[in-house]
Amino acid sequence: MSEEAVIQPAEELARAIKAEDQSAVLAVAGDLHYADLALAYQDLDEEQRIMLLKSIGPNLAADMIVDLPDSLIEEALDAYRPAELKVLFRDLSDDDRVDILQAVGDEARLRFLGLLGPEDEELTRGLLRYEPETAGGRMTTGFGRLLASMTVKQAIDDLRHKQENTETLSRMYVVDAKGHLIGRVRLRDLAFNTWDTPIRDIMAEVPPEQRVLATADQEEAAQILMKYDLVVLPVVDEFDHMLGIITHDDAMDILQEESTEDIEKLAGIAGEQVEDTYLQTSVMTHFKRRFIWLLGLGMLAIASGYVMLRFEDTLTQVFLLSLYLPMVVAAGGNTGGQASTMVIRAMSLGELDPGTAREVLWKELRLGSLLGVLLGASIAAVTILILPAFRPELPEGVSFARFGCTVALALTAQVITSTVVGALLPIGARAIRLDPAAVAAPAITTLVDVSGMVIYFTIAQALLHL
Amino acid sequence: MSEEAVIQPAEELARAIKAEDQSAVLAVAGDLHYADLALAYQDLDEEQRIMLLKSIGPNLAADMIVDLPDSLIEEALDAYRPAELKVLFRDLSDDDRVDILQAVGDEARLRFLGLLGPEDEELTRGLLRYEPETAGGRMTTGFGRLLASMTVKQAIDDLRHKQENTETLSRMYVVDAKGHLIGRVRLRDLAFNTWDTPIRDIMAEVPPEQRVLATADQEEAAQILMKYDLVVLPVVDEFDHMLGIITHDDAMDILQEESTEDIEKLAGIAGEQVEDTYLQTSVMTHFKRRFIWLLGLGMLAIASGYVMLRFEDTLTQVFLLSLYLPMVVAAGGNTGGQASTMVIRAMSLGELDPGTAREVLWKELRLGSLLGVLLGASIAAVTILILPAFRPELPEGVSFARFGCTVALALTAQVITSTVVGALLPIGARAIRLDPAAVAAPAITTLVDVSGMVIYFTIAQALLHL
Repeated sequence: MSEEAVIQPAEELARAIKAEDQSAVLAVAGDLHYADLALAYQDLDEEQRIMLLKSIGPNLAADMIVDLPDSLIEEALDAYRPAELKVLFRDLSDDDRVDILQAVGDEARLRFLGLLGPEDEELTRGLLRYEPETAGGRMTTGFGRLLASMTVKQAIDDLRHKQENTETLSRMYVVDAKGHLIGRVRLRDLAFNTWDTPIRDIMAEVPPEQRVLATADQEEAAQILMKYDLVVLPVVDEFDHMLGIITHDDAMDILQEESTEDIEKLAGIAGEQVEDTYLQTSVMTHFKRRFIWLLGLGMLAIASGYVMLRFEDTLTQVFLLSLYLPMVVAAGGNTGGQASTMVIRAMSLGELDPGTAREVLWKELRLGSLLGVLLGASIAAVTILILPAFRPELPEGVSFARFGCTVALALTAQVITSTVVGALLPIGARAIRLDPAAVAAPAITTLVDVSGMVIYFTIAQALLHL
Repeated sequence: MSEEAVIQPAEELARAIKAEDQSAVLAVAGDLHYADLALAYQDLDEEQRIMLLKSIGPNLAADMIVDLPDSLIEEALDAYRPAELKVLFRDLSDDDRVDILQAVGDEARLRFLGLLGPEDEELTRGLLRYEPETAGGRMTTGFGRLLASMTVKQAIDDLRHKQENTETLSRMYVVDAKGHLIGRVRLRDLAFNTWDTPIRDIMAEVPPEQRVLATADQEEAAQILMKYDLVVLPVVDEFDHMLGIITHDDAMDILQEESTEDIEKLAGIAGEQVEDTYLQTSVMTHFKRRFIWLLGLGMLAIASGYVMLRFEDTLTQVFLLSLYLPMVVAAGGNTGGQASTMVIRAMSLGELDPGTAREVLWKELRLGSLLGVLLGASIAAVTILILPAFRPELPEGVSFARFGCTVALALTAQVITSTVVGALLPIGARAIRLDPAAVAAPAITTLVDVSGMVIYFTIAQALLHL
């Protein structure tokens, strides 16, 4: 139902823009949620975008700009004069402001920082010190900070006085005189207790595992939020000083970005996942992310060809071997890919400690053996029962039974090897601190292609007495 | 920091269980968050699990059991007597109760339903009517329901009277006399307005796109929550009657499950993603999810072998062709895999409408051409410059330049074909209402293996005059 409900206003917006009717644009845009406005914005051409930005003004544009893909942000900001940008930046929450400044070029960042008021500038510069992909880089300082010694009345007065927006009311943390995080308070605790109750008596503890270090990876923060079903996660420094918070909507964005990155790496797509959608991303950007892996894997694949070249005699003596060659090689890629995908995803979900390597290996060894033996048996059966009907040429003294068993044995060996290699490579990559998803997946197929060729021809030579 | 902080209590718990010290188990478990308790539980053997369940009793166990993988839930419940189960089910929120009942067998479900009070049983049976993977199947009815005609005082009295837990205070919706959703109210609106203010004056509208139909897919609900940064999403029926809510933590679980499913399908792993972790899943379950694809793909791969067999003459005349054969074939799998992964992920993220098929095709055609031409040029250069140094045999009248160009042309044709096929297959699968991730990914590699063989040998025959 969400789809249909927003299509009409988006069309109205497009119509108003085409008609160059500024007041109609403002009226329709004002009724749209910023997320829908951001989607509509991306469907416009450059001239229409500027017209939209001019029509709605910096106040209405602020939240929409935060929701745009990084590559469109600087262009959008450049549509406004400095005085308008001052308004825009003042209206943003501190984490949104930091996100925007992280998305623009260095020159623009300095220029925009100069437009902030002295307090905002100091706060923003402080947040920009954290790497973009850490908890500190994603946090906001927009939370209510209370002291344990306050009464409910003092707390409410304090919040009313300081609060920039009402959001802080759902995120109140209690600190001691030195700023250490010691507890949290909910609005209902303030609303349903008498005014002279000390905050100390109504605050709840924040367990150590339900906070995150500012320098921790953003994914760790998202995992903690998800594990403990939190709406807000406090961010602290190494001395447990309360620095900021990460909210559930950020956590969802982070998890979604990381899943997309994992998926892309598994397919051999290099580089950071950009925030742009598939269609917005230019052909050149897509090209750059795919080409390097393809070239490298292509060169490596020549190793498989070299093995084939070396076994020229074997293949030409029993050319029927070529009927099963692609299958044996591909089975390795398929089983290796399955094993590495399962292991890499389990790592991403935080299921596998480094200590579980042996357990994983043992599981995949049993699994690979089971798969290998059953696939081998299937192919032997098919070969022995069906192949003779086609009357292919076999070398003298080689029966269909022997030929079928040869192929089956090679397939079994290839499947077992590939499954174990597929499980081991990501574990090994992590052990030497490489990203398992990026290194393991594309490398596995190529590696087991080579091993498959060697296994197949070696077993054929031995069992067929070539 | 979360990791270290919870390791100690988990070890203490294991020690207390080994010592069979019930009161120590209860003391340690009482301090653990249910998510951590559920993790610790899964590391125990069956006897220890029962000892843990008996020690902590049904009250403390309820939330932990909800957090267990589906396959462990029935066993855990069976540790309790009916009277204890009554307590356990009474303490659960309605959506958690439904989740548990969806996870157990039919016989157990009927037995457990009989333990509920008449009101809870009716409510639960009502929720069980929705499919588990729909918005209705995931929703809870635990929200505050207010009438627009109430005053703030009446609303507070009403909530205080009815509320089972304080959670409802952060989820208050306003309905008309017939139960249609007409607005929402925040606790701060009740707390900071005079008691005689009518709810009508302080409620906010709920835009049509920020609600979801009970019959909609759970993924749609999660996407709406994420798009609009909501903490709670109201669920309605087709007449806009307010039925329940879905919360941000459910949305996060849903998105994570769906990402894992996508990743597994891309690697040719069949069946529903089970809630169990990788290590908990038995070898047989892993086996079943992998074998069927492997067998099917293996049989299909014989088609590649058949093509090779048919081109016996070509290959034996210029056996040097085998040096590049695996590379040309593999390049197809790699480029096809990249293209299909990008398209499938974009579909999952809701970026591609069915109407954008032509746009996608045009982008991948340009991209495939660019990749194909550059990869071809690279391989031609390598062949012409380096190959002569190894003095391989070439048929009379064939220069290294001609041979290099032949290989390059075949590679270019294979890469373009595979990229377009890789992008088209998921789009085609969706058009005939198949799951793009499950059908497209494993099929692509096999398909382009065959096409690669045909392209390679046909171009070689033509250009080398074989």
